[in-house]
Amino acid sequence: MTDTHTMTQTIAPEFLVRAKTLLGPVGFIDTPADMENYLSDWRGRGNGEAPFIARPESVVQVSEFMALCAEYGVAVTPQGGNTGLVLGGLPHGEVLLSTKRLRAVRNIDPLNDSVTVEAGIILAELQEIVAKENRLFPLSLGAEGQAQIGGLISTNAGGVAVLKYGMMRDLVLGLEVVMPDGRIWNGLTGLRKDNTAYDLKQLFIGAEGTLGVITAATLKMMPRPAVKMVSWLCVESPAKAVELLALAKAETGGAVSSFELMPRIGVDFVLEQMPDTRDPHPDAKSPWYVLMEISFPREEGARDVLEGLLEKAMESEIVTDGVLAESETQAFEIWKIRETLPLAEKAFGKAVKHDVSVPVSSLPAFIEQANARVYAIVPNANIISFGHVGDGNMHYNVAPPEGVSDDEFYKAYGAELTKAVHDLVCDMNGSISAEHGIGTMKRDELAERVSDVEMDMLKAVKRALDPENRMNPNRVISI
Amino acid sequence: MTDTHTMTQTIAPEFLVRAKTLLGPVGFIDTPADMENYLSDWRGRGNGEAPFIARPESVVQVSEFMALCAEYGVAVTPQGGNTGLVLGGLPHGEVLLSTKRLRAVRNIDPLNDSVTVEAGIILAELQEIVAKENRLFPLSLGAEGQAQIGGLISTNAGGVAVLKYGMMRDLVLGLEVVMPDGRIWNGLTGLRKDNTAYDLKQLFIGAEGTLGVITAATLKMMPRPAVKMVSWLCVESPAKAVELLALAKAETGGAVSSFELMPRIGVDFVLEQMPDTRDPHPDAKSPWYVLMEISFPREEGARDVLEGLLEKAMESEIVTDGVLAESETQAFEIWKIRETLPLAEKAFGKAVKHDVSVPVSSLPAFIEQANARVYAIVPNANIISFGHVGDGNMHYNVAPPEGVSDDEFYKAYGAELTKAVHDLVCDMNGSISAEHGIGTMKRDELAERVSDVEMDMLKAVKRALDPENRMNPNRVISI
Repeated sequence: MTDTHTMTQTIAPEFLVRAKTLLGPVGFIDTPADMENYLSDWRGRGNGEAPFIARPESVVQVSEFMALCAEYGVAVTPQGGNTGLVLGGLPHGEVLLSTKRLRAVRNIDPLNDSVTVEAGIILAELQEIVAKENRLFPLSLGAEGQAQIGGLISTNAGGVAVLKYGMMRDLVLGLEVVMPDGRIWNGLTGLRKDNTAYDLKQLFIGAEGTLGVITAATLKMMPRPAVKMVSWLCVESPAKAVELLALAKAETGGAVSSFELMPRIGVDFVLEQMPDTRDPHPDAKSPWYVLMEISFPREEGARDVLEGLLEKAMESEIVTDGVLAESETQAFEIWKIRETLPLAEKAFGKAVKHDVSVPVSSLPAFIEQANARVYAIVPNANIISFGHVGDGNMHYNVAPPEGVSDDEFYKAYGAELTKAVHDLVCDMNGSISAEHGIGTMKRDELAERVSDVEMDMLKAVKRALDPENRMNPNRVISI
Repeated sequence: MTDTHTMTQTIAPEFLVRAKTLLGPVGFIDTPADMENYLSDWRGRGNGEAPFIARPESVVQVSEFMALCAEYGVAVTPQGGNTGLVLGGLPHGEVLLSTKRLRAVRNIDPLNDSVTVEAGIILAELQEIVAKENRLFPLSLGAEGQAQIGGLISTNAGGVAVLKYGMMRDLVLGLEVVMPDGRIWNGLTGLRKDNTAYDLKQLFIGAEGTLGVITAATLKMMPRPAVKMVSWLCVESPAKAVELLALAKAETGGAVSSFELMPRIGVDFVLEQMPDTRDPHPDAKSPWYVLMEISFPREEGARDVLEGLLEKAMESEIVTDGVLAESETQAFEIWKIRETLPLAEKAFGKAVKHDVSVPVSSLPAFIEQANARVYAIVPNANIISFGHVGDGNMHYNVAPPEGVSDDEFYKAYGAELTKAVHDLVCDMNGSISAEHGIGTMKRDELAERVSDVEMDMLKAVKRALDPENRMNPNRVISI
């Protein structure tokens, strides 16, 4: 891992005293045991360092605390549920500001299809709150039991329903942000249309805490689909998967809500490693599988549509075989294969991972050419490329050959493999971070790969909103 | 109108010579007759002034021209189809840069559902280009035969399909922008997911040309709905309309593509003023009408869904009466009522206009309270409030009482009426410019109404990207 970030800041004793008084005993944590959860990376890739953890209980307290930090020139790293993947929320000497105590549900407005919550609400909680109103909050991802709304917005989270509902950015109507100087920007609006000057909220979405602290958000609620139908389909190649996607979109009028591709090797990993999993279609061994979920607004006729689509796909030899989940249990079992794949892969050995995207149409060529480049470096590598084909987003991971330790593999080939894969991604106008963000892990690579004019703009934006460089400094970009 | 903007800039003769050479005879226009179309407001609200019109033929030429302007410190006003409503694209001494010759269709990628076009492509043309691929470009508005893509992005255009498909912002995947110093930022990406640092394109969308010149864009294509069903429904009040909207969204799973409210007085205006219009349902006189369009992905069962919905709406007394368009012609006739309403209203006399939004749930209270405030000022005013209820966006217009000239009315009551309406909008957390933008017309009012912290942020962004204040200066904000 390339976390080359270091930071030292001198914390004035007087600042500590004032911070402790302001935050109170529950809000000020500085014993190593209590700090550990906040300072360790869940993937075990190192620990952060902080003089203390600030856990303000309200937005006003966040504001007062940030003003205090401004007074003493103290840098701050905001943190939500600490489920990030690029080490963006681990402090390196900054004060860690946890949003976990910002827990108010401020407003639910069913007729406006909007809900306003504070940053510390957990995604799974929000899904439940919204379900009680007979609405859907569509964001869904592995860490949803721990990830907080503030962090999910700061990282513009993706997940498994982006194809139909978009990224977190597409679900945000308004934000409340505490600026580096402590002032509160009230950009909480439930409006669908507002063309009054620059859309400032967009800057904070995906900024990974480098411009301000998101304290609350107004989010969209969606109609709940009447029925979701999950199928597990065999395709000969990624190219066939992309053809299937186009067919499915056309036949259902855009109702495809998830479209995930997995190679046989990935399915085998899961079946070997994960308890209580079973092959959804043991009779058909295929090099690739598609998990397709379609969300229908009405139950009537839905099954006919899906069956018609699959018939067409079989006739035109896009799909070779497949099963349609006949029950919730079976749908759950199919989803389990996809959702435990990252964990199964982890058990097999640490892979050299890439979270990349290309235009959907380029995806088959990307996989083919990336494989060729990888095999040219490590002929017998285990390539597991899987993910959100519907969004052009693949998790393209390269595991060591059998018998090679992952550490050794990483040390010997990690940098070379990543350069080869990312070079190809950039040649194809893709992204080296489709959904995980930049953090510290990809900061230096980003700086190398973006154009001068783009880097100048990024720095100008950072300086404009955080002129003292106290908000999560050296994440995303260094100025 | 409140266009208090003035600007003088000294144009060096040498700059003129160099600009003329660079742009060539077709690209450099300075005779009054040829300049007239570019310099007059289509609503007849005054004329702009410019030393000449620059019509660069390519992005490279835009870049060279902007670099030349930078060298001589010359300010520039970009203009698309000149169909704006807030005088944002009329120059006041700046050089006018027209994007009309940037006409290339750079790429169509059906498997990625994306299309890349240059800024001068007209919306109606784009709709056709995309239709040939059996896809939909959903943006649709009155000026679509003239408005250009670059301008539509710069103003984050709305229109009649926002409810289902979003504003222009939601349809943009990537941008190419020439910066004030002439450098080209290539942010053209067809990616659905890209979490590499701040999403810079968001700044240019809706910036009204104040940060750079948009020269090309990659836009989303959508599946074409199999069938659109239009109905014309009688409701007793705006509150019933909002109830109907919630019911329709739930029953169709979010398939409502347009939901427009009109008062009887507006319908009467149209029937009186516009040729070839007829009352869609002459037997039922109602205080309010809803035009509801539902876009179904499949033909089968669509009519049943709509009829089921309408039955429920009648049973629960949300809707009192209505007709369902039985043919394309009938659908066209119903839409014509809505689309010609602004023109009919114009024929009746210039109204004091407001393009406002509030949360959908607040819309009935807004109309009621706004009416009360207006009648308190002008007891017999003719209020025509109509628009995109589904987006919480009303065009709330106040026409003079019978026998009063519009100029007289405007002079006597214009400022007072607007203040009363906008005060209420702000009390309700609404927007004083839902879709038309700020331009010069609402600039000073915006400055008065936004918080200090927000104005500081807006100015910081402007200074960050246009430090010399040469991009459409004094539009949106003054720095």
